[in-house]
Parts: sequence; structure tokens; C-alpha cells
Amino acid sequence: MAAADDTRPVTDTDALIIGAGPVGLFQVFELGLLGISAQVVDALPHVGGQCAELYADKPIYDVPGLPVCSGRELVERLQQQIRPFAPGLHLGQEVCALRREPDGRLRAETSAGQVFLAKTVFIAAGVGAFQPRRLRLEGADALEGRQLHYSTDTLPDAPGEPLLILGGEEPAVQAAVDMAEARPVTLLHRRDAFKAPAALLARLAALREQGRVRVIAGQPLALHLQGDRLAGLDVLDADGHTQALPATQLLARLGLSPRLGPIADWGLAMERKLLTVDTARFETSEPGIHAVGDINTYPGKRKLLLCGFHEATLAAFAAAERVFPGQPIHLQYTTTSPKLHERLGVTPAVD
Amino acid sequence: MAAADDTRPVTDTDALIIGAGPVGLFQVFELGLLGISAQVVDALPHVGGQCAELYADKPIYDVPGLPVCSGRELVERLQQQIRPFAPGLHLGQEVCALRREPDGRLRAETSAGQVFLAKTVFIAAGVGAFQPRRLRLEGADALEGRQLHYSTDTLPDAPGEPLLILGGEEPAVQAAVDMAEARPVTLLHRRDAFKAPAALLARLAALREQGRVRVIAGQPLALHLQGDRLAGLDVLDADGHTQALPATQLLARLGLSPRLGPIADWGLAMERKLLTVDTARFETSEPGIHAVGDINTYPGKRKLLLCGFHEATLAAFAAAERVFPGQPIHLQYTTTSPKLHERLGVTPAVD
Ligand SMILES: Cc1cc2nc3c(=O)[nH]c(=O)nc-3n(C[C@H](O)[C@H](O)[C@H](O)COP(=O)(O)OP(=O)(O)OC[C@H]3O[C@@H](n4cnc5c(N)ncnc54)[C@H](O)[C@@H]3O)c2cc1C
Ligand SMILES: Cc1cc2nc3c(=O)[nH]c(=O)nc-3n(C[C@H](O)[C@H](O)[C@H](O)COP(=O)(O)OP(=O)(O)OC[C@H]3O[C@@H](n4cnc5c(N)ncnc54)[C@H](O)[C@@H]3O)c2cc1C
Repeated sequence: MAAADDTRPVTDTDALIIGAGPVGLFQVFELGLLGISAQVVDALPHVGGQCAELYADKPIYDVPGLPVCSGRELVERLQQQIRPFAPGLHLGQEVCALRREPDGRLRAETSAGQVFLAKTVFIAAGVGAFQPRRLRLEGADALEGRQLHYSTDTLPDAPGEPLLILGGEEPAVQAAVDMAEARPVTLLHRRDAFKAPAALLARLAALREQGRVRVIAGQPLALHLQGDRLAGLDVLDADGHTQALPATQLLARLGLSPRLGPIADWGLAMERKLLTVDTARFETSEPGIHAVGDINTYPGKRKLLLCGFHEATLAAFAAAERVFPGQPIHLQYTTTSPKLHERLGVTPAVD
Repeated sequence: MAAADDTRPVTDTDALIIGAGPVGLFQVFELGLLGISAQVVDALPHVGGQCAELYADKPIYDVPGLPVCSGRELVERLQQQIRPFAPGLHLGQEVCALRREPDGRLRAETSAGQVFLAKTVFIAAGVGAFQPRRLRLEGADALEGRQLHYSTDTLPDAPGEPLLILGGEEPAVQAAVDMAEARPVTLLHRRDAFKAPAALLARLAALREQGRVRVIAGQPLALHLQGDRLAGLDVLDADGHTQALPATQLLARLGLSPRLGPIADWGLAMERKLLTVDTARFETSEPGIHAVGDINTYPGKRKLLLCGFHEATLAAFAAAERVFPGQPIHLQYTTTSPKLHERLGVTPAVD
């Protein structure tokens, strides 16, 4: 509950979108066509949700009109499409609380302390907020932010201090390459094979040759503590031998996994961890709070991109009734409507 | 009712799609992903429905992931997308009858005498079958096919016989240019201004200069008949004068207008000329008959391309239960499913 002397910045908005995955991005577009501007929050430091995070380089074949396109390309196309409606983007922060104000508006708070007061909210949270996968070893939690890190942001800037990086995919390899500039790096992964773009793997190979990155194949077994300080890590290698590695700084880049997180606590009707909605307005059990994309459920629901796009469209029309009460909301075609052309900032040839 | 000695060809199919507009085309794709092959019928001689017929050269801005694309380009993209599922295409014929056989299958008949026996039917008929707009003058109907034509197909091949063409858009101009090769042509339109691509207008101008095409600005008022034969046409010109034009052959190219046609007689529940469907299966009041795209209605319905694509997807899943009874129908991603890759005929790089 915000105290009376709460001085956190408050952003007033017609629409708040929770989640900047593909469906949250397209929600910006459909709201924009109806003259509603939006603020968007995502826990990740970048837009695109699952498409960007889980299959950026893999092809999608079933977006209508795009016979083939990678996850990354789809996100870029959606970003280009919503450009005319330039939403406020608030990345790297989770919406942790959502409740109704006495005046009926919806109040959302993020992990970074931002507050939004919105007339309508669109939960486009997909499979949840992406969070770094945790290192599940005894004592790990107590070291977090001091000697165990999930992002380079919290890593102390101590040139020369050895760094042990855990992980086998692009983020781990990227971190190894970046960090090797300033300090000795060891990269620990189940096996000596890494999943990353060829150019990055070539840079890793060069650094290994120069002796600036060492690779160890094995699995973390236990942390060595001296008092409350990390001193090393026991590692199980491929031959079944246990090896003790000295380590005072760990950077775990084990991938991201989605976590439904606080959404379950907002008092909205749910079914098997999904928000139940109607199929005319894609509204949750709370008026003015819509749920679109992978996070919602209704009879027939399929977790597909094209379904989320449809849901975002109908939700936008429903929200327009709330934002512009008493005004009729007509369907207009982007092809022919001068009003939509003005909003899109385009001037197609007329005949 | 087909008599016992009916020898018309009968095509057996799992799925029959009525309408090859954008939604009918995408229906082919979603059925194909689920392993169901389809036959498609359209009244027009080409695919694409409204996109091809009404705004081929105009831009669409709200297809998700396509920031801008013309009606024609969207249709081309959809055709490319469904190529792996090569449907049977039956163009230039209307489905005029649909009823259930005693064995439960659905029997459809086209204006060209084709018969289909289908397990499931998808009515993707949009705003109806496109038909040439009729000349509304007394006596016109009796002349049709003899001296009044809506297509050059029925025009007698009589070189030298003058032809009067009615219309002001591309099809009328194109016909004037084509026909002027073999016979004297007069082009009649409300005003001396035509809507057609620049290159075609240039050809018209050249033919006018050569005296091979004459243009008259005016509106048809009445037909002159001698007995049951057409002799001429009264025309009201811009100054309000009536002029009598001699004419023994008329070609009316007044554009196409959609006509719901026989669909209203198939015993399906309707609301304001639209087929009512549920939002889980997009099924009409008749089991196994789905309706998708502009032809259907349900709470929240918007006549948009992206809504039709969603509807086609859920309808395909519902139909799969009927085509493969007792088999579980799982959602698979085109990005990751080897079975879908096989059906799509693609072999994306694996890692
Ligand atoms: C490997 C793979 C392949 C796929 N292939 C296909 C395919 O071929 N075709 C297809 O149609 N679909 C495919 N999908 C599914 C498709 O990616 C999803 O349907 C789509 O991403 C859903 O979009 P969304 O915007 O609803 O959710 P997401 O993409 O999950 O995005 C949700 C966003 O919300 C954020 N978020 C969640 N909670 C909060 C919070 N409290 N505060 C702030 N931010 C929050 C998350 O960080 C995330 O960025 C595939 C999925 C995967 C994993
Ligand atoms: C000028 C204009 C601009 C538009 N702009 C946009 C836009 O910007 N964004 C957007 O999302 N939508 C737009 N639309 C709407 C969009 O074109 C329609 O939603 C879409 O075409 C619907 O597709 P459909 O396949 O359901 O029907 P249609 O495109 O109407 O196709 C139906 C087909 O079925 C055939 N048919 C009908 N009955 C029969 C029968 N009995 N037998 C055989 N064939 C039959 C018809 O000949 C036709 O080819 C616009 C429409 C127009 C007219």
C-alpha cells in the first residue's frame, strides 16, 4: 500500500500493457489505430518475449502472409509496425502489483518502483516473466549479488580477479568473451560444445588458444564456503571424477525460465495458471483488465501467435468503449480510412 | 436431387472450402498442417476474394508482421504459404447447393456441375460470390447472352459489328482496347474519365486518336427494341439531353458486386445475412459445417483479415477431431515439430 508521502513517479495512461512479447507489441498497434496510446512494461531488458528469448534464429511458418520468418525477424517487423504509435517502453522491470483505486482506475507497480495509473490494462504476460534460471546448490541464495551473479550488472568491477562462468549457450559464451578482456575466465559446461552463432564461437576459440579462456566440461556439485564467503566449487566431470575448482566470483548464465510470478495474486479468475477470459472482449474477471496471448484461456484456445493477434484486436475495441465512453466505435479499414492513415502517418496514393 | 443415373463426376474429400478469398486460402494452410487436404471452389476466375477484386493495388497496414502490403501482395504471400498443401482449385464456379447425405457426409454441387462429397465443409464466402453488376433497364434480362453480355465469353465473334461497352473502370477499358482490334468500339461512361492503370489509359488514348474507339459521356436511360431484338440505347448526356445511340451488341462491364446467393437456402442459422457460429470451433448450426471470415458472426466479431485467420485455425482443429475420430489432436509448433516440417516440406537447420 502506498503511504501518503509516497513520492514515486506516477504515470497516467489510457492503457498499460504488461508484457512486450509479440502479442503485447501488437496490442500497442491495435490500440493505436483506435487512438489509444499505451505504456508497456517487460521484465526482460528487450522486447519480443518467447520469440526473442527462445527461438530468435528459428523459423516460424504459420504467421499468415509470412511463409517463413525467424523469431527475431517477426519481432523486428512488429516493432516497425507499431512505430507510428511510439509506446512508452519500460524494460527490465516486472509488474509486481495490480489493484483498483477508489476512483476505479487501475494501479500497477513495477519492481523498479514505477507506478502506473491506467484506465485499462492488458496482461500479455505469455508464459510468465522470464527470469534467469537459478543455480540450485546449497548456500547459493545467500551468495547472490555478492559472489554469485545472474547478470554482469551486479558483478564487481575487479580486474584480474578470476571469474567462473556457468552455461553452454549464447549468453554464457558472450559473457566469457566479453569478460576475458579484463580478467581470467573459466567457462564450465556439461560438455565441451557450445550453442552460439558461428562468429561468437570463433572468438571463443581464439581466446582459448591465447589461454585467456579455459573451458571445463563438468557439472557443478556443491559450493565450497569459508564462513559466509565462496571459495570454490566441486565439479563432476565426464569420467565421473570430482574436481575442486577454486572460485570467488560465479556468473551463472543458465538460461531464462518463465515464472508466472505475482499475476496469480491479483485476484483474477484463473484456470490451471491461466487467466480466464470471454471471447468477445478478452476481459478477465475484473472489468477493464484484459488478458491476451499465451496467458489467457477460453474454450478452443490454442497458444499460437495468430490467436494472440486476434485477441489483442478484439480487446482493443472493448477497451475503446471504456476509454471513450458513449462514443460509437466503428470498424474502419486501414486501407481506406483517412483517419487511420493520419494515425499511421501514411499518405497512400488516392484515386 | 440427383437421379440414379446421375453421371456427374464426384470428388471425395476430407474438407471442402467454399471461397478462395484470403481466409479460404489460409484455411487450406491450417488444415494442411493437421494433415487434412482440401478442395477449394470460388465463383471468381481467380483466388483472393475482396483483396484481389476490390483493392489489389491499395495498401493494407494491419496484418500482423506486415507493416504494409497491397491486396495483391497479400494474396501472393498466402498462395506461396499454402503451396506445400496444393489444394484442388475449382475456379469460376459457384457452390449452389449443400446438403447432408444419408451417410452423414456433406454433398455440395457447383454451377459447373461438379459434385463434392466432404467430411467437413468450410464456408469462407466473405460478403458473397462476386457477380457482374447488372444493367438495370427494362428488357435487359431477355437480351442477356444474345445481345447483352457481362463477359466477352458470350460475345458472338462477328468482326466488323459495332460494339457498345458500358463502364468506367479497368475491366471496361481493357475490353475496349482488346475489342478494338476486330470491331468498331464505343465506350460509354458517366463522364470522360476512366480509372485504370496508366499504361492502359495510354493505349485507350492512342486508339481514340486513331478513331478506333469512340468515347461518349452519358448514362444509359432505356433500351430500344425492335421485336425481341436490341436496336439501340437512349443515353442522357451531361447537359441533360437525350441521345439515341444505335447498338446491336452491348458489353456491360459495370464492376462486380457480391451476392450472398444460395448460402441463405442451406438451412443454416443466420443473423442479418451472416452465419452464426460458436467461438471455439467456428461451427454453424450444422455439425461439420464451419464458417470463417467475413461471412460469420459471433459476439465481438470484426470483419478483419486477422480475425478470419484465427477463426480458420480453430475451425481446422475442430475439423481434425471429425476427420480423425478418436485421435488426440495436439498443438505443435511449426518452429520445432519434425512432423510439421515434413508436411511443410522444409528442413530447417537443427542444433
Ligand atoms: C520454441 C517455440 C516455438 C514456437 N513456435 C511457434 C510457431 O511456429 N507458431 C506460433 O504461432 N507460435 C509458436 N510459438 C508460441 C509463440 O511464441 C507464443 O504463442 C507467443 O510468444 C505468445 O506471445 P505473448 O506475447 O502472449 O507471450 P510471450 O512471448 O511469452 O511474452 C510475454 C512477455 O511478458 C513478460 N512478462 C510476463 N509477466 C510479466 C510481469 N509481471 N511484468 C513484466 N513483464 C512480464 C515476459 O517477460 C515476456 O517478455 C512457439 C513457442 C516456442 C517456445
Ligand atoms: C476496400 C476494402 C479495404 C479493406 N481493408 C482491410 C484492412 O485494411 N484490413 C483488414 O483486415 N481487412 C480489410 N478489408 C476486409 C478484408 O478484405 C476482408 O475481411 C477479407 O477479404 C475477408 O476474407 P474472406 O476470405 O472471408 O472473404 P472474401 O475476401 O469476401 O472472399 C470470399 C470469396 O468467396 C467466394 N464465394 C462466395 N460465395 C461463394 C459460393 N457460393 N461459391 C463459390 N464461391 C463463393 C467469393 O467469390 C470470394 O472470392 C477491406 C475490405 C475492403 C472491401
